[in-house]
Amino acid sequence: MLSFPSYQNIEAAHERIKPHIHRTPVFTSRFFNEMTGGNVFFKCENLQRVGAFKIRGATNAVFSLDKSELKNGVLTHSSGNHAQALALAAKWRNAKAYIVMPDTSPQVKVNAVKGYGGEVIFCKPTLEAREETARKIQNETGATFIHPYDHPHIIAGQGTAFKELFEEAGRLDFIFAPVGGGGLLSGTSISARHLCPEIKIIGCEPKDADDAYRSFISGNLVPSINPNTSADGLLTALSELTFSIIKKNVEEIVTVEEREIIQAMKWVWERMKLIIEPSSAVAVAAMVLKKDKLKGEKAGVILSGGNVDFQKAIKLFEELQD
Amino acid sequence: MLSFPSYQNIEAAHERIKPHIHRTPVFTSRFFNEMTGGNVFFKCENLQRVGAFKIRGATNAVFSLDKSELKNGVLTHSSGNHAQALALAAKWRNAKAYIVMPDTSPQVKVNAVKGYGGEVIFCKPTLEAREETARKIQNETGATFIHPYDHPHIIAGQGTAFKELFEEAGRLDFIFAPVGGGGLLSGTSISARHLCPEIKIIGCEPKDADDAYRSFISGNLVPSINPNTSADGLLTALSELTFSIIKKNVEEIVTVEEREIIQAMKWVWERMKLIIEPSSAVAVAAMVLKKDKLKGEKAGVILSGGNVDFQKAIKLFEELQD
Repeated sequence: MLSFPSYQNIEAAHERIKPHIHRTPVFTSRFFNEMTGGNVFFKCENLQRVGAFKIRGATNAVFSLDKSELKNGVLTHSSGNHAQALALAAKWRNAKAYIVMPDTSPQVKVNAVKGYGGEVIFCKPTLEAREETARKIQNETGATFIHPYDHPHIIAGQGTAFKELFEEAGRLDFIFAPVGGGGLLSGTSISARHLCPEIKIIGCEPKDADDAYRSFISGNLVPSINPNTSADGLLTALSELTFSIIKKNVEEIVTVEEREIIQAMKWVWERMKLIIEPSSAVAVAAMVLKKDKLKGEKAGVILSGGNVDFQKAIKLFEELQD
Repeated sequence: MLSFPSYQNIEAAHERIKPHIHRTPVFTSRFFNEMTGGNVFFKCENLQRVGAFKIRGATNAVFSLDKSELKNGVLTHSSGNHAQALALAAKWRNAKAYIVMPDTSPQVKVNAVKGYGGEVIFCKPTLEAREETARKIQNETGATFIHPYDHPHIIAGQGTAFKELFEEAGRLDFIFAPVGGGGLLSGTSISARHLCPEIKIIGCEPKDADDAYRSFISGNLVPSINPNTSADGLLTALSELTFSIIKKNVEEIVTVEEREIIQAMKWVWERMKLIIEPSSAVAVAAMVLKKDKLKGEKAGVILSGGNVDFQKAIKLFEELQD
């Protein structure tokens, strides 16, 4: 039974996961401060275990299970950072992790999951095939299914990044977080609304994968249809749960062009010397787009992850110059 | 009159430059700790102002000048990070900076110097042309010449990075620093010998630019002849001053192959999500080469800078796979 997580759930999640995850640093950047005239604080989840915030939610979910729920292992379908995160969190509890991945997944991602001891089950690269394969494995093994974002423990775990950011940077006027399935944004919004009641919470989405924007504007959940963006962590659509939290807390969803995403990524690489993935750059690009609002203000940006194919990234940088 | 700097000079330098430079973070990495069986602390000078430790020495040198020494500006010849560093430090004191650069310098480096208000004077890309042009400008302008490394204030400034590393990480058993002209290594060695008397101080040099190694082994200063390495910050040769300090303090100079440098750089990009330049990777590669000595030990590595051409870097990564 899924329920709307509270800030108290996020506090409890933080205590639960603290011994396992990194408390990632918060950086400022003269370049972006001069650009905006404000104070921008970057929460560096690219420096997190497995290279992304996803380990927060996965660890909270796995460590919330009791022995009976864990005895047959855990299960998810994901081609991305949640797959690695769940495999690692399960390993910490000596539990088995079954990870359903599309048979088109890059070998490096498959190897990473296997490196954490996860058992990879391949399926065709469609949402139906993923869900069907996951159901089949669940029936066969009795493993506990941990959805990548449609799950209160996942959402509560993701909300801990903002809590740490607040502990370092203090009260903020704005927070920018990327939105795909909405786990990070909804968790962030619960923390942010509680800790900084006046904060403006901005969801950041690629224009070419703008289902959250369209859902938010229309008030009705719309699916993600043919998303086409370099930000491959943001292809998924909101769930009823994440959408309901976002509707309640979020001020605005800003959409950004591919060109703006790549430019933002290049700035962070060049000026901050940090490797971030395109999905993280979506939040940076949205912050840049809003720069006129940030003068004299304090803004947070969640750099969600740093798992990127260097060759692809450079190709994108080159296209920028054309 | 150049003299051998003391640890007290480094303390004074630190007080002098603190208001202007970043206190850069110190990172650890599970990946490298598992590889070595030790505790490795990375001092992130890639996150320093101008993207390199060079701002420490330049700031110390410029802020040590009195008004009369500063009134006609400062002058150097450099195509690298020292050029930007001196231009910025001079700007902070409202002084003019004349920077002699080879006419083959990448436009991005020329623009960076100009961006800090430096006046760029081009010359042919030989050491003779650089020195002759610098002398000519000095005669014409009366500017104070600040050598990139053969200068006690520069050396004292560079020594402050180790002081900060020690303040965070405590006593270390090893310190690895790259060596080109020897400013960073000699300054580091003075700090390190004072703060951790038993520490092993390791200079790290590309095998294809191994003049410091050959000088160290033979006991006589040898010039850098046809250096050929991706670590373009380490092409210069030691001076009498830096060599005399290094001879006294340094345990060993380790040389590393190009392949080892690029592999180390790729590991830091991939695993630590930090952009470092090849010159920094030389110290990482040397640390990896010495990994059997590091079991149970505490080692520091100075990541000297992060100014790198992304396209060149990716090309080097690709060659690694061949």
